[in-house]
Amino acid sequence: MPEPFSFRIAASDGAARCGVISTPHGAVATPAFMPVGTQATVKGLAPESVRASGTDIVLANTYHLMLRPGAERIAMLGGLHRFMNWPHAILTDSGGFQVMSLAKLRKVEKDGVMFRSHLDGAAVSLSPERAIEIQALLGSDIVMQLDECLKLPAPPGEIERAMRLSLAWAERSKRAFEGVPRERALFGIMQGGDDVALRLASARALVDIGFAGYAIGGLAVGEPQEVMLRMVEAVTSVLPADRPRYLMGVGTPADLVEAVARGIDMFDCVLPTRNGRHGLAFTRFGSLNLKNARHADDPRPIDAESSCAAARDYSRAYLHHLLKAGETLGAIVLTTVNLAYYQRLMADMRAAIAAGNFDGFRAASTEIWTRADAIAP
Amino acid sequence: MPEPFSFRIAASDGAARCGVISTPHGAVATPAFMPVGTQATVKGLAPESVRASGTDIVLANTYHLMLRPGAERIAMLGGLHRFMNWPHAILTDSGGFQVMSLAKLRKVEKDGVMFRSHLDGAAVSLSPERAIEIQALLGSDIVMQLDECLKLPAPPGEIERAMRLSLAWAERSKRAFEGVPRERALFGIMQGGDDVALRLASARALVDIGFAGYAIGGLAVGEPQEVMLRMVEAVTSVLPADRPRYLMGVGTPADLVEAVARGIDMFDCVLPTRNGRHGLAFTRFGSLNLKNARHADDPRPIDAESSCAAARDYSRAYLHHLLKAGETLGAIVLTTVNLAYYQRLMADMRAAIAAGNFDGFRAASTEIWTRADAIAP
Repeated sequence: MPEPFSFRIAASDGAARCGVISTPHGAVATPAFMPVGTQATVKGLAPESVRASGTDIVLANTYHLMLRPGAERIAMLGGLHRFMNWPHAILTDSGGFQVMSLAKLRKVEKDGVMFRSHLDGAAVSLSPERAIEIQALLGSDIVMQLDECLKLPAPPGEIERAMRLSLAWAERSKRAFEGVPRERALFGIMQGGDDVALRLASARALVDIGFAGYAIGGLAVGEPQEVMLRMVEAVTSVLPADRPRYLMGVGTPADLVEAVARGIDMFDCVLPTRNGRHGLAFTRFGSLNLKNARHADDPRPIDAESSCAAARDYSRAYLHHLLKAGETLGAIVLTTVNLAYYQRLMADMRAAIAAGNFDGFRAASTEIWTRADAIAP
Repeated sequence: MPEPFSFRIAASDGAARCGVISTPHGAVATPAFMPVGTQATVKGLAPESVRASGTDIVLANTYHLMLRPGAERIAMLGGLHRFMNWPHAILTDSGGFQVMSLAKLRKVEKDGVMFRSHLDGAAVSLSPERAIEIQALLGSDIVMQLDECLKLPAPPGEIERAMRLSLAWAERSKRAFEGVPRERALFGIMQGGDDVALRLASARALVDIGFAGYAIGGLAVGEPQEVMLRMVEAVTSVLPADRPRYLMGVGTPADLVEAVARGIDMFDCVLPTRNGRHGLAFTRFGSLNLKNARHADDPRPIDAESSCAAARDYSRAYLHHLLKAGETLGAIVLTTVNLAYYQRLMADMRAAIAAGNFDGFRAASTEIWTRADAIAP
């Protein structure tokens, strides 16, 4: 029997907490960062490299996988874990975000959303029930409800309409999830844009329905960090303490620290992987753009003291050369370095919370980043 | 003191021989296959993955590295081994082949070749002396003379002119090499196209000059395998037995076996890496085009019995998906699989020669490949 989903808080420090999510595919130490494996692969890395970075759980995209290679095909091949050779935990989003950002000619109705595939223009429909069915076929450990995610800024009426629709879909998702193996978990998604009252209404209604975890959607879509954090503070005040809280699509290292300070347990973001492919390295001392000509003759590694071999083994000059020459190894090394940096940051936050020193850690990190931004080119 | 270059034959079986080349950066078991690291990286693989495939030595391209990032820059950064984080042996070609195939507006004269860079059109000149100087700056363990390499078919007069010019450059290269640290090695390159008499004349003249090893250039440029093997047979009859013989730019698995049968010790070729990037897997049972739709639902790995984890860990369906989706991991896995296959083939040949059973190994391999070609789609 696979281990059923559960969440245990091991220690708290202010609003920050650290703990463990148990899933049918292993434990996830929280606060947790989930690398994004859009098309059933974390771009450029073999699964053993993703694991070596300290990753317990990856996110995969329902929208992409339903279109290619197809959820039924993955199920027939033994499920997503076997398909992508990742035996650890997987969370799948519901497809809602990509339907809004990638699909063509979409039409949102009460029953669900109709759209045309960005790959071949084929007409596809996605309902709350179908989103659950697809994720059940994939075999995800954590399943997300279908929601409607708006770009900000948006008119208040639009924000409220999308929030209410997402709540109706949340109820239908919960009913549809009754047919899914019990050891897996369903998370509800809060909406409400940048409106505290709507966010609170969304959170309270979701808690009334009852979910294994609660996600904050519709943020990190262009609003200032301060707005995002205000929304996080508002909803965490009404969410049950014993359920994981997931801030979707966030963020920069500073975003992660500030959100953990406000009680967030889970994150996903393309930043470490996408920025790595584009030549940007995250380091303890701020970020480095290795495409910059000033690195061409620099024999120093990215970080000689890093516990990540990729950050120690290659000179900045070599990485600059690889990026200029368009060689894949440049993207691979920087993706590895960035993922290791993000997971190290999460581990450091967990240790600081357990030691009751999260405020000290947060202040020290903020100070280093502020200084780095001042000296970085 | 680094180990000086040397070559020791451990066993012979017919014309085939196995042995060890010692270099300042470690031993190379022969017959040896050298993966191509054009721009100071074997495309898509970290150096530890290249090493894990069983690789003792890689080839890097003088032409590419002299243009970007520049030989003087690499020397200032501690040499090519440190630059590309590859502490094992490196052979560099002389740039002659790429000047002919990539550069624009080239002009071959007695003194050397003038050309325009394919990167930015800058005017560059390369002489036999400069080719040695560049390779000395890179710190290559095995240095190749500058030669003129023609595409076949070519007019007989042209073939003889290029062969004589390459011989004159061989003499100048040997003199220029006197200033290079003694533990490194210089190889001469035979030319002569598909003309046995010219090939013999080229080989004899090179032996008179005297080199640490002898390379056969200007083959695998479009001629039939039978022609290539006839040239190999001709020159090996006059080459000294105690020096390594290197067949440049070759080849398919069958080419390697047939050339080893004729006394060749070293090879380089882009096939395993380039074909991997294009979706083709070499296996013990022939090659597989993973882009082919027939693999879309195939749960089998490339080779369940392979000693290479990448050949066992991923289904053909998953690799097909990665290739269709343009995901880098597909190219990485197939490059890994192909390099492991090539190095396993070399190891099997070495073992068969040591056991005095090379003919049996060759016949069995040929039979399997013939059958695979008949059943492969």
